[in-house]
Amino acid sequence: MTSTVVVLDADHPEGVLADPGVPLVRIDDQGLTRGDGVFETMRVVDGQVQGFATHHQRLEASARLAQLPAPSAERCRAAVRTALAHAAPGGDGGLGAEHSVKVVVSRGTPEGGPWSWVVVSPVPESTFRQRREGVAAVLLPRGHDPAHDSGYPWLLPGAKTLSYAINMAALRHARSLGAEEAVFTAAGRRVLEGATSSVVCARVRDGRRVLVTPEPSHGILPGTTQATIFGAARRDGWELGYGPLYPADLMAADAMWLVSSVRLAVPVHTLDQQPLPVDPELTRLVTGWLAAA
Amino acid sequence: MTSTVVVLDADHPEGVLADPGVPLVRIDDQGLTRGDGVFETMRVVDGQVQGFATHHQRLEASARLAQLPAPSAERCRAAVRTALAHAAPGGDGGLGAEHSVKVVVSRGTPEGGPWSWVVVSPVPESTFRQRREGVAAVLLPRGHDPAHDSGYPWLLPGAKTLSYAINMAALRHARSLGAEEAVFTAAGRRVLEGATSSVVCARVRDGRRVLVTPEPSHGILPGTTQATIFGAARRDGWELGYGPLYPADLMAADAMWLVSSVRLAVPVHTLDQQPLPVDPELTRLVTGWLAAA
Repeated sequence: MTSTVVVLDADHPEGVLADPGVPLVRIDDQGLTRGDGVFETMRVVDGQVQGFATHHQRLEASARLAQLPAPSAERCRAAVRTALAHAAPGGDGGLGAEHSVKVVVSRGTPEGGPWSWVVVSPVPESTFRQRREGVAAVLLPRGHDPAHDSGYPWLLPGAKTLSYAINMAALRHARSLGAEEAVFTAAGRRVLEGATSSVVCARVRDGRRVLVTPEPSHGILPGTTQATIFGAARRDGWELGYGPLYPADLMAADAMWLVSSVRLAVPVHTLDQQPLPVDPELTRLVTGWLAAA
Repeated sequence: MTSTVVVLDADHPEGVLADPGVPLVRIDDQGLTRGDGVFETMRVVDGQVQGFATHHQRLEASARLAQLPAPSAERCRAAVRTALAHAAPGGDGGLGAEHSVKVVVSRGTPEGGPWSWVVVSPVPESTFRQRREGVAAVLLPRGHDPAHDSGYPWLLPGAKTLSYAINMAALRHARSLGAEEAVFTAAGRRVLEGATSSVVCARVRDGRRVLVTPEPSHGILPGTTQATIFGAARRDGWELGYGPLYPADLMAADAMWLVSSVRLAVPVHTLDQQPLPVDPELTRLVTGWLAAA
């Protein structure tokens, strides 16, 4: 892979560069045997991590719920710096040289205990293509409303853990239906979130400009990208709405996006095989907010 | 660790012995980054795998749901044989020399693809102590009834995946409450299953002998150990019941066990800080059924 890996190490404040082409993880690492760890993904533009403080706070929140130690912001920043210094050139989608950064905390082996690493990779052309061309998505029931988990810390509500098997299975199922993305729904087809993204849609009518996202809950991961978009939109005079959102609302919107840190705002051009309006100007506006953040 | 690891390998029908003390897994293995894999745990007594065919069938079912290749029964058996030939002596809890065997299928790296391995470990004294002395357990809400997931293959209902972060968090929460085990409940406190086990309880009254387990559903992992117990109990003239079970039913039972492949039947002596009756004779009976299976 073209990624650069730096392992955080108490004795090396800058982290330790590792060869990602060789095994680095023991077979009894609980990140592997139990999906027992947390992570955070960030975007880097021209060497600058976007929204680092917000992401690090969310990493700390995930780690706290999972009773894992989160590396300090300073150590994370230093490790990312080391990785970037050795990384392949960033991808160029017209917004600068872009990398993705993933920070992972695993519970490690029973003897060795928790450890952390960062992985820096050039943003691939496939991501730029999704931003430009959009994606087809399907709505898939989540089986339950994750908000029902919110009062129970042992269900890790809102934590971004390594236990993503269901999200990955949903994406495979979407692909088997000819789509690229899956959007989860609760009872009554109420829209929740994408398998690895948040949902945002826009309505622009009679001079009113409204951005809507499903109601935040402890069961839906708090979307840092969605929050950035909403902050900029508010300053720009948009009205903001927080669900509930149903498929009919998405169908009636003037634009729908799946938003996440590295992909930014990816337009959904097809939902459950129905065409959705795509508005390149609105996408440029939203992307501009994110690029300026 | 005192485990023995054998990696399944197309070129080596007996598998390849690996040193578990050194890293064997790449950092971009999707078993690690996404908890994207499936596994099965089995018990070995005096070198004989208990219920291999049933476990291999469940591994195949898990793998099918996750769209992963399951290694053939023949290759699994051969790898287990290789591992056992190099394993440390089995633990001795009075039922022979016991090992646990874990078979794992991970989705692997994006380039390398899925791979499998087996881990053989002596059953530790802590397991024998749990069988003898029992455990304290707490009831913890699961947030939703996993049966609601059952119609949706992309939620991997009934698959034993590597995404166990919530189960591990529930066990940590149980320990923070002074207990050793967690039992999940659905709405109305209906009993579902242990964090890593099935629930079975016994009522023996007025000459009637009844074993009860929560109603099987696609949301609860089909318990191979529970099924073995029920099969033997039926032959022995017991009545069998399939839930629903509520906390009051557990409190009124003459014995409650958490059952799983390696632990066999572990008596629950305390539930939510309330003492439960423990019946060593019943435990011996149930354990005997499992040992003879």
